[in-house]
Amino acid sequence: MAIKVLTIQEDILGANDEKAKENGVFLDKKGILMVNIMSSPGAGKTSLLLKTVENLKSKTRIGVIEGDVASTIDAEKVSEQEVPVLQINTAGGCHLDANMIEQALKNMPLDDIDLLLIENVGNLICPAEFALGEQRKAMLLSLPEGDDKPYKYPLMFTEADVVLVNKIDLAPLLEFDMDSFMKAVKGLNSKVRIFQISCKTGKGMDEWYSWLEGELKSYRG
Amino acid sequence: MAIKVLTIQEDILGANDEKAKENGVFLDKKGILMVNIMSSPGAGKTSLLLKTVENLKSKTRIGVIEGDVASTIDAEKVSEQEVPVLQINTAGGCHLDANMIEQALKNMPLDDIDLLLIENVGNLICPAEFALGEQRKAMLLSLPEGDDKPYKYPLMFTEADVVLVNKIDLAPLLEFDMDSFMKAVKGLNSKVRIFQISCKTGKGMDEWYSWLEGELKSYRG
Repeated sequence: MAIKVLTIQEDILGANDEKAKENGVFLDKKGILMVNIMSSPGAGKTSLLLKTVENLKSKTRIGVIEGDVASTIDAEKVSEQEVPVLQINTAGGCHLDANMIEQALKNMPLDDIDLLLIENVGNLICPAEFALGEQRKAMLLSLPEGDDKPYKYPLMFTEADVVLVNKIDLAPLLEFDMDSFMKAVKGLNSKVRIFQISCKTGKGMDEWYSWLEGELKSYRG
Repeated sequence: MAIKVLTIQEDILGANDEKAKENGVFLDKKGILMVNIMSSPGAGKTSLLLKTVENLKSKTRIGVIEGDVASTIDAEKVSEQEVPVLQINTAGGCHLDANMIEQALKNMPLDDIDLLLIENVGNLICPAEFALGEQRKAMLLSLPEGDDKPYKYPLMFTEADVVLVNKIDLAPLLEFDMDSFMKAVKGLNSKVRIFQISCKTGKGMDEWYSWLEGELKSYRG
């Protein structure tokens, strides 16, 4: 059965990659930068989104797609910021895929959006395998998760354009070896940018905002 | 494509359930209690395992199966406790399945084991969908992950026999509404036992050890 699963998985990934490419081409034509934000459950994706929208919405026209197995909790929080938001429920699925994003794009006011932020399903494994058509991949790793995660979930760190190390306000209470973590991440992905942040205190967030604005600027030429 | 995936998924789950039943019958004959421990990445499964083995190994013959996408970090830590341990690498797979456990059981000294603890892959979604043949399911939720997780990952909380709320030593620094969390979990699963623990300080761990010993006693008659 193991081999059977693998074959099916490859077919799905191939079909998904095709659809993701189509989404990417479509977004390029529209001039929309789509950023796929991924992490474990509870690492702080929604807090990051809320702070980012709050900080950038006066300068940039932002839209948000929320991915969750169940519930609309996150979309409700984002909608308070009065930006376009759409919730995808995967009904048990452990990641978003390119077909879901194609459907979502059909249901968003794309002419009013320059930066489209996607909160993927909380999972450090499968979201890294399924391209959505995004131009950038961001991942969060929160300090309480531990510094060994690059060894245990290597693909996510390999795929990311930027790694945000969140909850650094908890550092004094935790045994998290930042040097060892940085070295492991750079070993997998030498080009990745790494920012240490706290969505709670705001520390390091300006670097992330600047990075996003810089990427948007270079994308839109 | 969404419907295709769902159909395949159902076939896989059906075949997995059959194999899981076989594993369960086999373990019953051997008199081995297998406990499937599940959580998000970094919630503390390995710390829980290490403390549990350390505390119970003088009274109970314990074996451990470690599930990870990659690496043998966790198995190496457990092997220092000098109990039988086997590492399964899923090579990208986001959960263990019954076939993997069948293979693992063939490679363990089962005549020397009464309690078999499984650390599943760090993931709050798919491990809840794939039965392994275990007699008990335990899940960890660490405080930094937030109190809204039962709404966002309901199946895991519905399937668990026991929920361990870990890292309660961080409670003073976090906004985690324990009453609201408890209510949400009980709403999904009225029979579940919930223990508040800290693998770091040891708080609440005795309740978990007693529960495990009680389950082993009642299982073995």
